Amino acid sequence: MAFASKSLHTFLDELASAEPAPGGGSVAALSGALGASLVAMVCRLTICKKGYEAVSAEMRAILPRAEALQRELVDLMQADTDAYTRVMNAYKLPKRTDEEKAARARALQAALQHASDVPLCVAEACVQVLALARPIAEKGNQNAVSDGGVGTLMAEAGLRGAAFNVRINLHSIDDAAFVQARRARVAKLFADAARAEREILSIVEQRL
Amino acid sequence: MAFASKSLHTFLDELASAEPAPGGGSVAALSGALGASLVAMVCRLTICKKGYEAVSAEMRAILPRAEALQRELVDLMQADTDAYTRVMNAYKLPKRTDEEKAARARALQAALQHASDVPLCVAEACVQVLALARPIAEKGNQNAVSDGGVGTLMAEAGLRGAAFNVRINLHSIDDAAFVQARRARVAKLFADAARAEREILSIVEQRL
Repeated sequence: MAFASKSLHTFLDELASAEPAPGGGSVAALSGALGASLVAMVCRLTICKKGYEAVSAEMRAILPRAEALQRELVDLMQADTDAYTRVMNAYKLPKRTDEEKAARARALQAALQHASDVPLCVAEACVQVLALARPIAEKGNQNAVSDGGVGTLMAEAGLRGAAFNVRINLHSIDDAAFVQARRARVAKLFADAARAEREILSIVEQRL
Repeated sequence: MAFASKSLHTFLDELASAEPAPGGGSVAALSGALGASLVAMVCRLTICKKGYEAVSAEMRAILPRAEALQRELVDLMQADTDAYTRVMNAYKLPKRTDEEKAARARALQAALQHASDVPLCVAEACVQVLALARPIAEKGNQNAVSDGGVGTLMAEAGLRGAAFNVRINLHSIDDAAFVQARRARVAKLFADAARAEREILSIVEQRL
């Protein structure tokens, strides 16, 4: 059963269970999705509202992008757990002969690379949520400024959590060029997002 | 229908809707609950595992506290939306006579104070999740160190988001002593938690 069809109670209990999946990777994606949903809510609370006529067109343009990011991040919650399962299945492949050992190593490396690709996608989607959260925080309905602030916090936590999950998967990857490129990409996303978060939250503080 | 019984899909769509509730306040509580669930998961992945015999007793003591915080924060998700509804209902009270005006003002002030109490409870529960996340990050199963890191990020985002929601409710509260005490309490929680988060994430970084 897909996560998104489960109740919050069930999801939280499965998260807390001794099964490693779902785990932090799926939570990072959910955090980004919660941020995107809050951005969409503030758009809806601003469009055509008295005093916000001048920014309604901009909010109308942001809304479908926030909704698309919400859907993408929900899909990535599931993809993260599926990627973990693929790694676990690769570990279980037979390793009696040299051929089996080589096939298992190839399957494992491919599964690990995929397991680091998924949280990278989560991190990049969270960066896009942050980009939408900025005009929301600046120009959205003042009554919902704390909602834009919480959306920003969730997108930032999603990004940082996803970065941890990219990095923990890199440990066992043999391809040094792949590892180096991923580390550099994550460091860049991390730095850009930290600056964006500080700036957006400073706007929220001023309007709060 | 209580939030916790709804599917993640339904919750995210209701969040993104033009209804102001559920909003950032409930998301802050959910963020803390996700952090508590991840702390519980890392406990379970550590207790009686090879190499972690020396910390199993400590993890066994943390586990029920994390589970209790998960439940408390799920209840607070609902309480936040209920508190918002109470404020909206107070605004709708009649104000034709002086008596009605006075009764409406009293009901509104009481509802607003309650609406700032709920996110304060969320913030305090998130501080407790952070306190449990520290020994988890230091001594929990190394394979789950990124999960402890994500749990820390979620608890911190929950706390900061709850603080926004305490503060936005203070604007309309007339009791200056109440407002000042709340502002001071939130500022203290905020500062303590920011330091705790930095310290815990630095441990996670070292073990990642």
